[in-house]
Amino acid sequence: MASILALDFGGTKLAAALVESGSREWLRYERRLSPANADANTDMEIMRSLIASLLQGTIATAIGVSFGGPVDATTGTVRLSHHVPGWENIPLKNLLEQEFGLPTIVDNDANVAALGEHRFGAGQGYDSLFYITISTGVGGGWIINGKSWQGAGGMAGEIGHIVVDPAGPVCLCGKRGCVERFASGPYMAQNAKDILQSQQKQQGGEILRSLVENDLNLITGQLISQAAAKGDKIAQAVLKKSAWALGVGIGNIANLINPQRFILGGSVTKAGETWWNTIQQTATATALPEVSFEIVPAALGDDAPLWGAVALAETLQ
Amino acid sequence: MASILALDFGGTKLAAALVESGSREWLRYERRLSPANADANTDMEIMRSLIASLLQGTIATAIGVSFGGPVDATTGTVRLSHHVPGWENIPLKNLLEQEFGLPTIVDNDANVAALGEHRFGAGQGYDSLFYITISTGVGGGWIINGKSWQGAGGMAGEIGHIVVDPAGPVCLCGKRGCVERFASGPYMAQNAKDILQSQQKQQGGEILRSLVENDLNLITGQLISQAAAKGDKIAQAVLKKSAWALGVGIGNIANLINPQRFILGGSVTKAGETWWNTIQQTATATALPEVSFEIVPAALGDDAPLWGAVALAETLQ
Repeated sequence: MASILALDFGGTKLAAALVESGSREWLRYERRLSPANADANTDMEIMRSLIASLLQGTIATAIGVSFGGPVDATTGTVRLSHHVPGWENIPLKNLLEQEFGLPTIVDNDANVAALGEHRFGAGQGYDSLFYITISTGVGGGWIINGKSWQGAGGMAGEIGHIVVDPAGPVCLCGKRGCVERFASGPYMAQNAKDILQSQQKQQGGEILRSLVENDLNLITGQLISQAAAKGDKIAQAVLKKSAWALGVGIGNIANLINPQRFILGGSVTKAGETWWNTIQQTATATALPEVSFEIVPAALGDDAPLWGAVALAETLQ
Repeated sequence: MASILALDFGGTKLAAALVESGSREWLRYERRLSPANADANTDMEIMRSLIASLLQGTIATAIGVSFGGPVDATTGTVRLSHHVPGWENIPLKNLLEQEFGLPTIVDNDANVAALGEHRFGAGQGYDSLFYITISTGVGGGWIINGKSWQGAGGMAGEIGHIVVDPAGPVCLCGKRGCVERFASGPYMAQNAKDILQSQQKQQGGEILRSLVENDLNLITGQLISQAAAKGDKIAQAVLKKSAWALGVGIGNIANLINPQRFILGGSVTKAGETWWNTIQQTATATALPEVSFEIVPAALGDDAPLWGAVALAETLQ
């Protein structure tokens, strides 16, 4: 039986799994947090130890790799990591092929997760879909005509940096009003903090303040969801703006590409029913009446990149 | 030699041509304006007479059709025409196949023009491109992975109705700040008229006013380009906003799909160098620095749908 090695270089964590081709369950699975001062070398060292512990004499036939950052998928070269230094222009595919003597294929995490959901998750049987991950950042991956579409330069899927409000706040990319500027966990936290700090008097926000014991630097996307669920008006407004930005983005994309499904994953998607409903309503209002689509939650959770790496490796066989 | 019949149902005009497969020149070409009170029946009647005059005993092997309106490309059924009544749910492919006994393929004009530019025009040799037509409306057609992409429901390419300014003016589709609301010829005319009518004193616009002899209902997109070229500040501002909206749309699309080329056609693309430069600058500023693309003028002009119909028919052979 052919065994596939699936690797996930995740930015804050490293995961690896071994699976028999055709199976839907891991044969073995390992996961380790990246250390605080990680660089590309320490990440590679940890991944080597995970692989050694997984293989234990099993002979794998291919390696599929999900990398958390831009990748030139044609050569399998990492362009950079936004979280871990030292990954600039590392030929990850070649390194792994030389070290393990196995055919290897590498792509960025959003494309790989899209492939994972298409093959094993919420996208099974759908010929066209856009997978969106909303957590520390906002990114996406395409399945078009049944196949992964990375774009001419491997940069497709950047829903995080499409502009939905040209009069909005400045994003880390330098533009105003990007989807990510409203929708990501850290930016939701910043937006809530900015509102609370600029308050003249108490005008809501008490619940959120009490959750962080008035230390506004402790606000997270997750706490905003909690506060919103408990009725905090400011948390609700911030969460609503996040969903609005995603809804406009999704509606625009529906008009442009008309995929069957949008699949949403990442930590922010646990924000609750109001967030999901606002996305659905805004996207429906933004898309033309003739354009139909579904918005559904991802099915594979944190394992989407690993399962996508399996699907990627299977293309080599 | 196999001959192909290419038909263009254009809303205001009907055109048809006969070409030998592989040739880049029309064997015969016919064109007629749609009468003022045209409906689907009169359009079909005119097209029949064009076809009869083209064929004159030549035996064609296939028919390719460009239709100016939404089409279900899988069945070749017209959904409607926004310009000519009576086209609702007309099975155009079946009608033509029955009448002429030839295999027929039908798609909407933007998709077909994209295919024409890809095969015979500014998109030759490009694996991914987005063709945009900017005239009475704003629409587009995709080539992705070397093939036409119409979307799951045949609605892909609607750049005209993506939102670029949620605080902008209301579009005919009901939303605010769509690309078309700023960029199309008729909307540029309306925007100029609105500015001129709301003027308290003369603050520019004299050149535009003189071109229409103060009858603001006579303003057209073309006259705005003329007035702008002569230094009219209001015409320049309206034209700049058109280019800005298209530039934001193009930059967003570059981030989302990362195609190699954007090909711009339609009457408004004759608006001059400033318009083109503004599009280029805005699109570059909107796209992420890692995302590269080219914006070029269409090469086939008004014949793009007919040449696309040829390319479409060739897929049948």
